[in-house]
Amino acid sequence: MSDKPTPLSGFPELLPEHRVVERQVIASLSRSFELHGFANIETRVVEPLERLAKGGEIDKEIYVLQRLQATRHGGAEAPEPALGMHFDLTVPFARYVLEHAGKLEFPFRRFQIQPAWRGERPQEGRYRQFTQADIDIVGRDELPFHHDVEVVRVMVEALDALPLPNLSFQVNNRKLIQGFYRGLGIPDVTAAIRQIDKLDKVPAEAVRALLVSEAGATEEQADRCLELATIRVADTSFVERVRALGVDDELLETGLSELAAVVDGCREAVNEHVRVEANLRIARGLDYYTGTVLEVFMAGYEHLKSVGGGGRYDALASDGRTTYPGVGVSFGVSRTLIPLFSDGVLAPGPKVPSRVLIAVVDEESRSASDAIATSLRRRGIPTEVAASAQKYGKQIRYAERRGIPYVWFPDSNEIKDIRSGEQQPADPDSWTPTEETEQ
Amino acid sequence: MSDKPTPLSGFPELLPEHRVVERQVIASLSRSFELHGFANIETRVVEPLERLAKGGEIDKEIYVLQRLQATRHGGAEAPEPALGMHFDLTVPFARYVLEHAGKLEFPFRRFQIQPAWRGERPQEGRYRQFTQADIDIVGRDELPFHHDVEVVRVMVEALDALPLPNLSFQVNNRKLIQGFYRGLGIPDVTAAIRQIDKLDKVPAEAVRALLVSEAGATEEQADRCLELATIRVADTSFVERVRALGVDDELLETGLSELAAVVDGCREAVNEHVRVEANLRIARGLDYYTGTVLEVFMAGYEHLKSVGGGGRYDALASDGRTTYPGVGVSFGVSRTLIPLFSDGVLAPGPKVPSRVLIAVVDEESRSASDAIATSLRRRGIPTEVAASAQKYGKQIRYAERRGIPYVWFPDSNEIKDIRSGEQQPADPDSWTPTEETEQ
Repeated sequence: MSDKPTPLSGFPELLPEHRVVERQVIASLSRSFELHGFANIETRVVEPLERLAKGGEIDKEIYVLQRLQATRHGGAEAPEPALGMHFDLTVPFARYVLEHAGKLEFPFRRFQIQPAWRGERPQEGRYRQFTQADIDIVGRDELPFHHDVEVVRVMVEALDALPLPNLSFQVNNRKLIQGFYRGLGIPDVTAAIRQIDKLDKVPAEAVRALLVSEAGATEEQADRCLELATIRVADTSFVERVRALGVDDELLETGLSELAAVVDGCREAVNEHVRVEANLRIARGLDYYTGTVLEVFMAGYEHLKSVGGGGRYDALASDGRTTYPGVGVSFGVSRTLIPLFSDGVLAPGPKVPSRVLIAVVDEESRSASDAIATSLRRRGIPTEVAASAQKYGKQIRYAERRGIPYVWFPDSNEIKDIRSGEQQPADPDSWTPTEETEQ
Repeated sequence: MSDKPTPLSGFPELLPEHRVVERQVIASLSRSFELHGFANIETRVVEPLERLAKGGEIDKEIYVLQRLQATRHGGAEAPEPALGMHFDLTVPFARYVLEHAGKLEFPFRRFQIQPAWRGERPQEGRYRQFTQADIDIVGRDELPFHHDVEVVRVMVEALDALPLPNLSFQVNNRKLIQGFYRGLGIPDVTAAIRQIDKLDKVPAEAVRALLVSEAGATEEQADRCLELATIRVADTSFVERVRALGVDDELLETGLSELAAVVDGCREAVNEHVRVEANLRIARGLDYYTGTVLEVFMAGYEHLKSVGGGGRYDALASDGRTTYPGVGVSFGVSRTLIPLFSDGVLAPGPKVPSRVLIAVVDEESRSASDAIATSLRRRGIPTEVAASAQKYGKQIRYAERRGIPYVWFPDSNEIKDIRSGEQQPADPDSWTPTEETEQ
């Protein structure tokens, strides 16, 4: 390979000093999810194309796989199902649940942190390969509502533990909107939800017109839909405000009490850093949500749209005999971290895990330097040995460039903290870094 | 989705209780690599097809990507480079080094644990998606030989820390073989290496014939090549045995001393569980190895061929002006773990991370159970709350099925160890599991 490669648009890659931060974020998320009993799984990255096309939005740009030799030789072998790369973690998870149902315990709590792929035209905040972190709880035949509260609270706690700008969970409930529209007498409730979902991109006036033209609403009904959509509060006072709009419907009442339970159930988890609000304009365009719906926004990054989202789907999966209802929240790891790295909001970590560089006097005594390194490593201190026996000044600069804070001189058995310049005698069998015991 | 999915051949997926073991293995490998100063990176999963084809073996079955909409609409958009999924982690790493060279510090030690894909016909030990763990050290323009010793020793230590059957590192050196063949006067040295590499699959008699027909060797030269290939020892006594064959060559001498240094340099790391042997028949078919070569075998699983391998390549990458020599070892995570799971050699872990199930008296008091769970989680104890307020006997069986060892009864504030049956009073703010403090 003798040419200089150019980056592939839409396929971002991290340098080691950013990757270490991404790994810390993933480890922190995993720890939070496991504290709540979520088990980890990974699914294969491909699904039969047919299954991907059933995933709700069939307009996604899916990457389809072809075997190179099959292309070249005209595919003489037995035909195989067309495979595509998954574009989210929900479709493969639903398939995983169906395929392995007999070996899983329900309700099944799982977290999954993996890349997904979309062949989209890359733009800010949109990548062709991006990592997501999903949690879902899935039941067999039924899944009590309290899991809706649980899954939101778990994601609130998990994201609160991350070094991110302030986050806002905007929660709503499909039953609330549907019941309200139905009680109001709007002819096409689903079409109305789709129009309201456009409020972020389209002015209210235009949405009002669409409610009339696309959902069959009267001008007055459209106004009330828009009124509902303006309600946004961080407590359960929305219940009274909705009731004041004078619509009476059983489904609406269920929606109100479910949404109130989610907001209330997160009360002890929320703070300045992570808020939870009832926002009655949140609809999420996807048709399969049936109750709780939510989106997560990051302060200063509202132009990225949501950095997370999810909700309840009463039929995540079904094999014809058994239905598996689920509720889940997804967090966009790449979507969040990459802009924060670019903007310097998230500082890079160290370029190498090493805490200590053992200097080398000359190549003949390299094994003496190796022996010191072995002692430190035995006690869990990441250590590397200098690549060559240059002058000590050069070896110190080698450590500096990598961000290694200590240099050990094997001839004098002294260690130098290159941040303070302090140098003192040290014993390979007992010395530990002063400020931190491990990476 | 209303049909029962069937597994995709060659794309194995783990149940949660096996995945937890795979994660422990990956965490252990990462810890070992970081102790030695290796930084983690991940590369995107696709490369331009041209670059994949340059990777040495162009006969690999590569999965090529096509955008679904592009296929459907006849690709009206601007053409993009054809993309394929990487079939190993070396080709993408070489490209990563070239692309980011200006921002990396050399020698650059990196580890990478990611899946790779091959569109091969699946067979035992061969998958279409499989996870590998690679370590490499790459220099700019030069890379001292001592890094060959380092990289082998690091992988020996990393694999020694895993709960695997006994492992054997079989090491050789290309300079040794090449020098020996050259000193012997064999006309086509490269062809001879390729024939010797077949000794695992083809009887010695047949290899002898191939050495004559394909590499232009005389019968007597072929005999000496086969003699060399029978030498296999766990110490440096091979040096004398090779010298006794009476071939004199400068490159041979370099190879002998390099191989002796690797075997010698691993002496303190090896034991019953992981051995390192000089095996002079190891060649590895790939043309780009230039010095150290090795393969790793697992006791009882020799039919899988190697579970790892690697070596020195003096030109891992080049941009025309600068050459980047490297040395590395790859370990097949899926290739090793999946057969061990199937055979029950590696026991599954727990189905869920939860250590405690908080029972629920009735739905009205669920928040009391939640509060106990919150106390335990604050102290790092993974906890879940029962899904429904069934009879306690049913809630205990729920915990049993998941492998959760403790059940907490919130009405009496008592905790039951369901393995021993013991039940005693417990305080949510101070109780800890007796035998282990964390998962």
